[in-house]
Amino acid sequence: MPIEVPLAQACRLLNHGPTVLVTSAHQGRRNIMAAAWNTVLDFDPPKFVVVIDKNTYTRELIEASGTLALQIPSRAQARLTHAVGNCSGRDADKFDQHSIATFASSRIEAPLVEGCLAWLECKIIPEPHNQQTYDLFIVEAVAAWADPLVYSAGRWHFPEGAPRSIHHVAGGAFFEAGELFRAADE
Amino acid sequence: MPIEVPLAQACRLLNHGPTVLVTSAHQGRRNIMAAAWNTVLDFDPPKFVVVIDKNTYTRELIEASGTLALQIPSRAQARLTHAVGNCSGRDADKFDQHSIATFASSRIEAPLVEGCLAWLECKIIPEPHNQQTYDLFIVEAVAAWADPLVYSAGRWHFPEGAPRSIHHVAGGAFFEAGELFRAADE
Repeated sequence: MPIEVPLAQACRLLNHGPTVLVTSAHQGRRNIMAAAWNTVLDFDPPKFVVVIDKNTYTRELIEASGTLALQIPSRAQARLTHAVGNCSGRDADKFDQHSIATFASSRIEAPLVEGCLAWLECKIIPEPHNQQTYDLFIVEAVAAWADPLVYSAGRWHFPEGAPRSIHHVAGGAFFEAGELFRAADE
Repeated sequence: MPIEVPLAQACRLLNHGPTVLVTSAHQGRRNIMAAAWNTVLDFDPPKFVVVIDKNTYTRELIEASGTLALQIPSRAQARLTHAVGNCSGRDADKFDQHSIATFASSRIEAPLVEGCLAWLECKIIPEPHNQQTYDLFIVEAVAAWADPLVYSAGRWHFPEGAPRSIHHVAGGAFFEAGELFRAADE
């Protein structure tokens, strides 16, 4: 069961640069895509930026609903992450197509993907110039969740064998998050 | 010796979400800071976003020069990365203070830090609203370089024992980039 992450600490979930899955929904339609191009923008309230191309179905749904969810897939979901990043949800429901199990968000419409490491329910802060010119969206998290196996008490911890975040390089190649270390110990 | 990375592939250098060092210079003054909050914005010409707080000395220098360099430190530079991210260059030159060796950029004023994995010389695309409201800078790379030990022919490759990128979590804790894998093989 996911645990709730205090919003003041939610930026820690994306601080290390993982690739995310973006889910969206509006009036019964839903979609999922992958986005390596995301980062943190502010601490509290926690804001993030994410790049969503104009041609995507996701773009249509997030502009209609004003919301989206960002979630961190694990290596076990790498094949899925690459697959949903390379087809459109306009013609067929990608959740059905790829048998993606979901659970309900607490504050927004978008479904959350089971098996991820963390989830951010977000509302879009409208910035039409950024959206039109750069496909750049600024969002604010309104709820945040994490799998307590890998994140609790404000910290990531990846015990031996635990699932880890993935970081897209290009063309379906990813880095897995490696060793967690403290700069002071180097 | 760094090799030049074609600009059309420069976005691959930051695609996996590493923490970067930001260097800047203007009329003989120079500075360095760390920035975990960065991501790719576009392929070609390659654009990036990076968050630079209003209170930083870096902010003063990049607004005056219109340029900055982003570079990817390795784990051997983790202690340095954390250190330069937690003090100001207004009072003392951080390069001298931390004995940071540099070499010259090809197109901009900012010095480049020796021992990094890759370097992006960038010009700022002025977006006053983003800069004022969000501390968000949009930059375009005008030259890109990489250490051929870890990046060549358009790909990262980290042979056994090679230096790897680092990904800041919080408070001086970092992930090192882990195993490189293909989603199709999972």
